[in-house]
Amino acid sequence: MIESAEPPRFETKIRVRYDEADPMGFVHHANYLRYFELCRVEMLRAAGGSYREVEQAGEFVVVVRADVKYRNSARYDDVLNVQLEIAKIGRAKVEHHYTIEREGQVITEAALTLAVINAEGNVLPIPDWMRLRVPDG
Amino acid sequence: MIESAEPPRFETKIRVRYDEADPMGFVHHANYLRYFELCRVEMLRAAGGSYREVEQAGEFVVVVRADVKYRNSARYDDVLNVQLEIAKIGRAKVEHHYTIEREGQVITEAALTLAVINAEGNVLPIPDWMRLRVPDG
Amino acid sequence: MIESAEPPRFETKIRVRYDEADPMGFVHHANYLRYFELCRVEMLRAAGGSYREVEQAGEFVVVVRADVKYRNSARYDDVLNVQLEIAKIGRAKVEHHYTIEREGQVITEAALTLAVINAEGNVLPIPDWMRLRVPDG
Amino acid sequence: MIESAEPPRFETKIRVRYDEADPMGFVHHANYLRYFELCRVEMLRAAGGSYREVEQAGEFVVVVRADVKYRNSARYDDVLNVQLEIAKIGRAKVEHHYTIEREGQVITEAALTLAVINAEGNVLPIPDWMRLRVPDG
Repeated sequence: MIESAEPPRFETKIRVRYDEADPMGFVHHANYLRYFELCRVEMLRAAGGSYREVEQAGEFVVVVRADVKYRNSARYDDVLNVQLEIAKIGRAKVEHHYTIEREGQVITEAALTLAVINAEGNVLPIPDWMRLRVPDG
Repeated sequence: MIESAEPPRFETKIRVRYDEADPMGFVHHANYLRYFELCRVEMLRAAGGSYREVEQAGEFVVVVRADVKYRNSARYDDVLNVQLEIAKIGRAKVEHHYTIEREGQVITEAALTLAVINAEGNVLPIPDWMRLRVPDG
Repeated sequence: MIESAEPPRFETKIRVRYDEADPMGFVHHANYLRYFELCRVEMLRAAGGSYREVEQAGEFVVVVRADVKYRNSARYDDVLNVQLEIAKIGRAKVEHHYTIEREGQVITEAALTLAVINAEGNVLPIPDWMRLRVPDG
Repeated sequence: MIESAEPPRFETKIRVRYDEADPMGFVHHANYLRYFELCRVEMLRAAGGSYREVEQAGEFVVVVRADVKYRNSARYDDVLNVQLEIAKIGRAKVEHHYTIEREGQVITEAALTLAVINAEGNVLPIPDWMRLRVPDG
């Protein structure tokens, strides 16, 4: 489906909420996984899809592996740039690379491997909607 | 079902987790509702029930109203005493009173009104398991 | 400070995140308190302020009481309208009324009493920035 | 400091809370990072320390890298076994291996790299308390 030489990329902005920062004042490290999730949901929406409808149709995205490198810390009220690049599409797995930046400074980088299962927990071939190209901005 | 003159009470202990405290260093005010929920789940367990099985049987507890008074703040790693008293049992609603204390000091007090619905969202008569008396300790 | 006959109102939109819905498929009831918080932070921003700067200046908003009525349930990916009306401004307390709607249907209504403390935990008189009028339209 | 041939290990139990499971019914993948954190805090406590006191003394543990493999899914109310093994102790970094099991079945495996910083954000040499051996049970 992907005809471009360039890998599909997507970018969204997230503002850090008060309860997402911990007593240290930094975004709790678990929350970055939520930001990555928000970014892929918004990429699907930008491509005309809806993850809610995907689940209603009986397909569920699961994270198989998440390798996150924490480079710098973000704080409450920071506006973060979350970027997603589809790095690899296999038969049953997709690899996403995420970068979160604040004003050009890298906060986290991550490689996530995703799969799609049905309601019975069986792994499905990667569906077309996970390969969708976001139309050029 | 309740034969005692004393209202049913239950008490459980919760230790504040790191990510439950916010940049102020205090437990984020939304999290107390989670502590109340944990307490009623543990009360059911102490009475021999299981909220997971309740849901599997098609009954779902929903909060209809929550009136929470924040008296003092709790911090990361504090051990809190969460107390539940069943204040009123009606045909379709139950009223719970919760008190959270730390070493005798009141942190929060709350009155919660709960109802039980089925998978279609219809309100059910209060089932027996919500009236269960916790055996005397 | 408020010269208008109309109480100050503010409205913001929030889209329900995946992890904010629970196994029932509904937004977990604790999360509405987070949505109210987001709304008051955005109201301050719309008025030219910044809650981050408020805290850096040594003032902290605390919730003294939250009385929430849950009218209907919201689900993952719903777009919610969060409305805030400053109902009362006292010397040391402010009362906010919140309404969350989805396409005109009320999801939750709440009255929150807020106070402002300093880093030592002492209650401060309500500062001007909590009385700020959001400029019309 | 570690004289034993065996790497230090620690194990704690966690029961999945209702709001930690998502609409799929599974523990949201971000929450496993919170379970790992709880495990290392409890390991320190079992060794006679307190992470709260560590922070009060001006030392803060930060996650530098988290590589998590999701093997199976856990559900609401599951009791999980969280195991921690200190895999490597360097001058400025510690590597922890975590395994979460439910009745002998592996749910997640993870390698986390941790560092310790001071309040100014400077990396500190790994302090002794992060090398502490949990006394044999």
